[in-house]
Amino acid sequence: MNDTDAIDYARYDHIRPIRWTGDALELLDQRKLPFVVEHMACHESDAVAAAIHSLAVRGAPAIGIAAAWGVVLAAREVEAGDGGSALQALEPAMARLNAARPTAVNLAWALARMRRALAGAGQDWRQVLALEAQAIADEDLAANRHMGMLGAGLIAPGSGVLTHCNTGSLATAGFGTALGVIRAGVAQGHVERVFAGETRPWLQGARLTVWELQQDGIDATLVADSAASHLMKTGAVQWVIVGADRICANGDTANKIGTYQLAIAARHHGVKFMVVAPSSTVDMDTAHGDAIEIEQRDPGELFGVGGVRTVAEGIAAWNPVFDVTPGGLIDAIVTEKGVIQTPDRDAMQAAFSG
Amino acid sequence: MNDTDAIDYARYDHIRPIRWTGDALELLDQRKLPFVVEHMACHESDAVAAAIHSLAVRGAPAIGIAAAWGVVLAAREVEAGDGGSALQALEPAMARLNAARPTAVNLAWALARMRRALAGAGQDWRQVLALEAQAIADEDLAANRHMGMLGAGLIAPGSGVLTHCNTGSLATAGFGTALGVIRAGVAQGHVERVFAGETRPWLQGARLTVWELQQDGIDATLVADSAASHLMKTGAVQWVIVGADRICANGDTANKIGTYQLAIAARHHGVKFMVVAPSSTVDMDTAHGDAIEIEQRDPGELFGVGGVRTVAEGIAAWNPVFDVTPGGLIDAIVTEKGVIQTPDRDAMQAAFSG
Repeated sequence: MNDTDAIDYARYDHIRPIRWTGDALELLDQRKLPFVVEHMACHESDAVAAAIHSLAVRGAPAIGIAAAWGVVLAAREVEAGDGGSALQALEPAMARLNAARPTAVNLAWALARMRRALAGAGQDWRQVLALEAQAIADEDLAANRHMGMLGAGLIAPGSGVLTHCNTGSLATAGFGTALGVIRAGVAQGHVERVFAGETRPWLQGARLTVWELQQDGIDATLVADSAASHLMKTGAVQWVIVGADRICANGDTANKIGTYQLAIAARHHGVKFMVVAPSSTVDMDTAHGDAIEIEQRDPGELFGVGGVRTVAEGIAAWNPVFDVTPGGLIDAIVTEKGVIQTPDRDAMQAAFSG
Repeated sequence: MNDTDAIDYARYDHIRPIRWTGDALELLDQRKLPFVVEHMACHESDAVAAAIHSLAVRGAPAIGIAAAWGVVLAAREVEAGDGGSALQALEPAMARLNAARPTAVNLAWALARMRRALAGAGQDWRQVLALEAQAIADEDLAANRHMGMLGAGLIAPGSGVLTHCNTGSLATAGFGTALGVIRAGVAQGHVERVFAGETRPWLQGARLTVWELQQDGIDATLVADSAASHLMKTGAVQWVIVGADRICANGDTANKIGTYQLAIAARHHGVKFMVVAPSSTVDMDTAHGDAIEIEQRDPGELFGVGGVRTVAEGIAAWNPVFDVTPGGLIDAIVTEKGVIQTPDRDAMQAAFSG
């Protein structure tokens, strides 16, 4: 089976979290899912930064794409004769976009691409920016489809998979990273059981992933994050498949809080662990996971759900929303450039340098 | 330091989940905590069974105590000349109490004690039952205080601890099991940091444990269940301390879903793992964990929080509410009879047989 066989991609195209209208950036407000499907229109780059910060748009690839369109919006507010001077004028807006969330490298990567495009642009710099943003989105979708095939190729028939957070269409330009692999694996008939962890505190698994799969007619079973090890012990799961927010030069991978725990449990049970992310997530300038800034969010995110407070007043909470899984606990990193088995510094160097 | 030194137990006596008025059993309705502190009065044994099933009263020792009082209530509804005939008449009510929840052995243990007391009783069998129920409660409180000292004695000064679910006054006759050890450790000054996991799906940690500790003036920090491994990696935690619903003859321990995952993560990080439970939780008739019935609850418990639905309609969920931690992942089991280090079949046999 190759990239063009057998998978009816139109089936997986119900959800597009990021739509450029030519005039505004429409973001599917993921805070309101699954019960309210509503797009919010951003007319200014700072509105995009706010949407990224507030998790209206989320998922490492998606926030990169949204930020790129944010630069296109910012371009309307500056006067510049060519790309070089535009670059200077846009820097404050780009810095605000970059600061919206710290952990996912895709945000900085997308902004760096926009800067590079600008640097070589002449009078038509606005058009260059718009084309570059569209290219970032288009390449992301293509990468996801390709990664889906690569990752699914690792999965034996009759397998069960467990995923964490949301790495689907909602988190990308479409199809998804880890969820793309699961979609491809289901389409091939190799994946027979799909489990999704709730993913506290934001419940991306409960609110988004199972809903997204439901749109495709893929049965998935929701489990509490804390039930993952018990699930593995039953033998129902052969692969844990997750996305990534930053992959270091030695394979250490930052992803949603709880991923590290799943990797430890997977190793304990002999379950395989796969990371799926576009190469824009690879950060060869970060030597190892200890150097990654882990975003700490408002402790209040642990104090309730959907506006209902469940925790007494005056309680302290610790709310890191990412953790780092050592490369040594990962069996395969899948990017659109290929599969890296048992990632370490040498394997990463061979795949991503030069 | 011995049992009578230094700990001001009155400080930990704010909360009593189970009160016998002489006429009715008043249960603190734990479904409404922490915002509504309300007792519900049970006048019949079936009301007690329903309260146990619905988690109005929860925690392995507490449901044993509640069930014992349930038998006292059932006694009002039967006529019998002596304990032997009362035993027969009460059997249907006791069977319904026993069926209210399957995993915690304390429920069956308390009912067995009530049966034994009845079997030897004469005309005064009603009084015998009431005295036995009170004894079960009193002994539980005494056991907890003693276990607190035993467990705290294992903890080095300057330690941080992580607990799961609620094992405090709310789960027992008072003081708590794992939380009793933490209380004693804080009182001794050895425990400097207390972390509590949220404990999905029922959020016993978020709703109950941090509230209970707050009543005592003990600072605790709430964390998502999935953040436990990341927390351990920071070095902030030296002991994971949990309760138990059933401890098998080889040390395998059933406890709240997520406990097994914490034990795997603790071993991975060199963090010690302690189980604290009265000897009534030890079930030498169950050889190992695979023989324990794991309660599966309504998948709907994963579909929302506090009446707010967060998951789309039509989704499947898997909701086992206990798991089994192998004895080999446990560093110490603390009961009121003493401490069992690195529990296995031989050590359990030596402590609990004959």
